[in-house]
Amino acid sequence: MVEIDFKKGEGLIPVIIQDASTNDVLMLGYMNRESWEKTVETKKATFWSRSRKKFWIKGETSGHFQEVKEIYLDCDGDTLLLKVNQLGGAACHTGHRSCFHNRYEKGNWKETGEKVFDPKEVYKE
Amino acid sequence: MVEIDFKKGEGLIPVIIQDASTNDVLMLGYMNRESWEKTVETKKATFWSRSRKKFWIKGETSGHFQEVKEIYLDCDGDTLLLKVNQLGGAACHTGHRSCFHNRYEKGNWKETGEKVFDPKEVYKE
Repeated sequence: MVEIDFKKGEGLIPVIIQDASTNDVLMLGYMNRESWEKTVETKKATFWSRSRKKFWIKGETSGHFQEVKEIYLDCDGDTLLLKVNQLGGAACHTGHRSCFHNRYEKGNWKETGEKVFDPKEVYKE
Repeated sequence: MVEIDFKKGEGLIPVIIQDASTNDVLMLGYMNRESWEKTVETKKATFWSRSRKKFWIKGETSGHFQEVKEIYLDCDGDTLLLKVNQLGGAACHTGHRSCFHNRYEKGNWKETGEKVFDPKEVYKE
């Protein structure tokens, strides 16, 4: 019987976020046990921010919450995959649909994809 | 200009592997700078095994190599996404197409999906 292994990553597990309708990979975040429990309880993706060292409900500033539709755990229990409904149509704080918008081409990273929103509008100071 | 940030994960970066044709997420592995360079050079996904502490060319035992088709880096440079052609049709050592075959249902993890191969046949002792 598989279980989430929080020990391997010193309390944190990487979580892949995939768009439930398009199957595009949107981002990768980290959860500790408490943010995992909050995610299950609220059905909104909730992470642990490694840089800010605090809970981070995805969308709490932008309104672009991630409604969790399906949850998968990998074979050795050390990575989660969440299929979500991405409100606002974009996961990235840059306004891109996916955080993975830098494509490797001939040794360089090239920005790809259109912006769905203007970050200045969404993250008002 | 974004670059791969190997420092945040103490020399390792998580790498999401996605099937280039179906967009299914197959697995997550880790690369250090050298395995990243090998991946780019050989166009075969090459990881760093955290448990065995050595290079690991995905498929070197099973023949189920991952031919790299597209490479993406996320907005803050700390996660890679590779779209691959999965030889043998399955990424998981259990014979499942994807390592993410445990689905969360009412508080339990339920094995889902069919096995593409029999691990006993592929990983002969």
